[in-house]
Amino acid sequence: VSGAADDLVEVLAGIVGAAAVLTASDDLAYYGSDRCRGGWPVAPRCIVLPRTVEQVQAVVSACAAAGAAIVPSGGRTGLVGAATATAGEVVVSLERMHRILEVDATGLTLRCEAGVTVEAVQRAAAEVGLMYPVDFAAKGTAQIGGSIATNAGGVRVLRYGSTRAWVLGLDVVVASGELLQLGGALVKDNTGYDLRQLFVGSEGTLGIVVGAVLRLCPPPAATVVALCAVPDEARLLDLFAHVRGGGVTCSAFECFDAGALRAVLAHKRLASGPFNPPSPQHALVEFEVAAPGDAMLQAVQDRVAELLADAHEDGLVSDAALAGTPQQARDLWSLREDVSESLHRHRPHKSDVTLPIARLAEFVPAWRELVAARLPGAVPVIFGHIGDGNLHLNLLAPPDEDPAAWHARCEAFDAEAYALVGRFAGSVSAEHGIGLLKREHLHHTRSAAQVELMRAIKRALDPRGLFNPGKIFAPA
Amino acid sequence: VSGAADDLVEVLAGIVGAAAVLTASDDLAYYGSDRCRGGWPVAPRCIVLPRTVEQVQAVVSACAAAGAAIVPSGGRTGLVGAATATAGEVVVSLERMHRILEVDATGLTLRCEAGVTVEAVQRAAAEVGLMYPVDFAAKGTAQIGGSIATNAGGVRVLRYGSTRAWVLGLDVVVASGELLQLGGALVKDNTGYDLRQLFVGSEGTLGIVVGAVLRLCPPPAATVVALCAVPDEARLLDLFAHVRGGGVTCSAFECFDAGALRAVLAHKRLASGPFNPPSPQHALVEFEVAAPGDAMLQAVQDRVAELLADAHEDGLVSDAALAGTPQQARDLWSLREDVSESLHRHRPHKSDVTLPIARLAEFVPAWRELVAARLPGAVPVIFGHIGDGNLHLNLLAPPDEDPAAWHARCEAFDAEAYALVGRFAGSVSAEHGIGLLKREHLHHTRSAAQVELMRAIKRALDPRGLFNPGKIFAPA
Repeated sequence: VSGAADDLVEVLAGIVGAAAVLTASDDLAYYGSDRCRGGWPVAPRCIVLPRTVEQVQAVVSACAAAGAAIVPSGGRTGLVGAATATAGEVVVSLERMHRILEVDATGLTLRCEAGVTVEAVQRAAAEVGLMYPVDFAAKGTAQIGGSIATNAGGVRVLRYGSTRAWVLGLDVVVASGELLQLGGALVKDNTGYDLRQLFVGSEGTLGIVVGAVLRLCPPPAATVVALCAVPDEARLLDLFAHVRGGGVTCSAFECFDAGALRAVLAHKRLASGPFNPPSPQHALVEFEVAAPGDAMLQAVQDRVAELLADAHEDGLVSDAALAGTPQQARDLWSLREDVSESLHRHRPHKSDVTLPIARLAEFVPAWRELVAARLPGAVPVIFGHIGDGNLHLNLLAPPDEDPAAWHARCEAFDAEAYALVGRFAGSVSAEHGIGLLKREHLHHTRSAAQVELMRAIKRALDPRGLFNPGKIFAPA
Repeated sequence: VSGAADDLVEVLAGIVGAAAVLTASDDLAYYGSDRCRGGWPVAPRCIVLPRTVEQVQAVVSACAAAGAAIVPSGGRTGLVGAATATAGEVVVSLERMHRILEVDATGLTLRCEAGVTVEAVQRAAAEVGLMYPVDFAAKGTAQIGGSIATNAGGVRVLRYGSTRAWVLGLDVVVASGELLQLGGALVKDNTGYDLRQLFVGSEGTLGIVVGAVLRLCPPPAATVVALCAVPDEARLLDLFAHVRGGGVTCSAFECFDAGALRAVLAHKRLASGPFNPPSPQHALVEFEVAAPGDAMLQAVQDRVAELLADAHEDGLVSDAALAGTPQQARDLWSLREDVSESLHRHRPHKSDVTLPIARLAEFVPAWRELVAARLPGAVPVIFGHIGDGNLHLNLLAPPDEDPAAWHARCEAFDAEAYALVGRFAGSVSAEHGIGLLKREHLHHTRSAAQVELMRAIKRALDPRGLFNPGKIFAPA
């Protein structure tokens, strides 16, 4: 550690208190990385834990004066290395700024600090009979600031959109140390460039989100859940079109294939699956009941049963299970939700991509062909948010494959697979972001002109490269 | 006209054909301005009417080479002068690029050129049983490109959001002449900064929108419409909270006061209004029925009747009319929708602001007080999209007031009124934008640091100030 570094640590301790600047090696390791384990080092200079917006501003100014880069840090549940400090950066963790400041049940807004977890926001909304509909597995750990910086998606994007759609106001500390208060609790505000949306999804490269005003909404009165056995991917998309045009509100349309179900059944130690004979593909479909009352619920249930009967007649589904109780609904959902965890022990090689929905049926066979040609013996397992065009493509190594060799083969495969995604006008990252992990693949989704424009914006907002250097694109 | 200008006109004629470059004075006047008549001149150099993206790119490059500024131009229904050419700019009208290129009924997307009208998009969606939900009075003339550049709002923002929420993909020609194809038909795409959202609402200052992929949605199966007589503004907000928490989907919550109703009745030559005695305030409320079928419709109607009965018991409404037929629903809607046209002959001084919904009840009396103190004799008329916190504040001149004096008094009043909006954390422009008209009031909603950041972005994307100079903020 250089003398200059020591000086900065002292300056930072003077701002936040000595107990709120961490330099012990286990703290550096714990706070220095997100959930993505790439080949890069985890090497922050120190961890700073401010408690107020003013402290964040002072920390940013001190780092700017010292020429020290900053990694803004939330719950670190990200999967692309966007919150990892690789080269002596100061990690500014928002975890001690976790207050819910105001819930407005008429305006349907909630104001909070950046370090509050997504789950705590959901709970605070539920306490007044409302809902924060962004929902994903890591919500108990993920913080609102990080979910905004990464534009988190999840299981109900089909119905409610990503985090971007729920951010009304945003408080951000920028490179000058100034606090920008963008938007406030306003639904409509056409006064120049939407700077809010520029920060949403910027992965901490333009400033530090310190607070937000979020939109809330009334929850549905009830939901109706069905699991469908579907013969193949083309009919999965036909079923989606059928269901979407069916006059009931579809809040989720998720898919998982036979391999994914086998993994879940093994993980849960269940002898048999929901369908006999087993189905190549499954659609987990959720519908919303807008208003309370048995009549309303019954009307939606009847309509869904009708839709499924029609789909069966048309050969889109070979079998279907309609949940009759909340417990049955949870059981059906768990077959989909547990896929990721069930695959974990197989250490799958993962990929998170979106395709235009109309091209999914073409893309999947092309991807399978590529797998067969380049990774013979590998087992492809596909699940995802098919209603959003978002597939999680997993590859399980052939038995007895050497881990290092497998990793190298997967890296080579990725270059071709992401190029395929690009050829189908898809995106190399649906919801996980770019971070460090996908930087080299960004060009398949973003043209050189677009990347240059992003760099120009980065230079305009952060001319000295203070915030999260090297994330999304290499420093110029 | 200078020789250089003549040269440029020739170059442009070489690109788009001589018949697609207009220089006659009536063409310059017609294409040179939007619907806002400010004190500024209308003085374009020429009007260019390209038919292809390649022509737009060549026109931009030619203008850049000649150092000639460009005003991108759509249907010119704007109300703040954002599409007005005041100083010899080249107006690039997209009106000849009006093709709908693709409608995808499964992916719920529509791809079109920028010059297609909003109404034509709505029709194309309806042809496949879908809906483009952005809806506003000027839709038959307003073009999609302009609606994106201004982030158009309208009557169903409460339920569906502004244009921003419906733009999936955006094709933009930027200052280098390059075409950026942003997003495509993807619901999820977390690959760096959201450049799309930066262009949405940028009022033509960063590039020319030449095409878009829009999201569509299924229309509601039916709607239920009620008109409520409400004693005062505070109870209007209580009613909004009551209705919003009522478990039915509220798709519009609009308001108009007694003065607005009087103007509509006079305009329509109706002897009496919907309520006796007349009510100080009215709420026009629309609810959606999510699924088809009489049972569903009946359930929503019953629930709405219950909600209104409870509201009556609690003193929130003194009377209410529930439409029993589609014609009755249209009649009730027209009392709200015709307000603006009915006021027109009184030449009201207008203002379009948003407040946080929770502060509306405080703001309105403060604004009324300011009117009484500064503009004695003026008649305030308030209507608007109260569910969005968006009020249209109108002032009718006292009888026999000199028009010039009235205009001057209103200008002085505006400075104070917008400052009041700022103190209540509101926005000086809810949906109309800033353009030339509200430039001087921008600082009430946007801090100096925010405006400086917008300028920095403008410089980064358009370093030579090619696009729409002087709109939103004065050139640096």
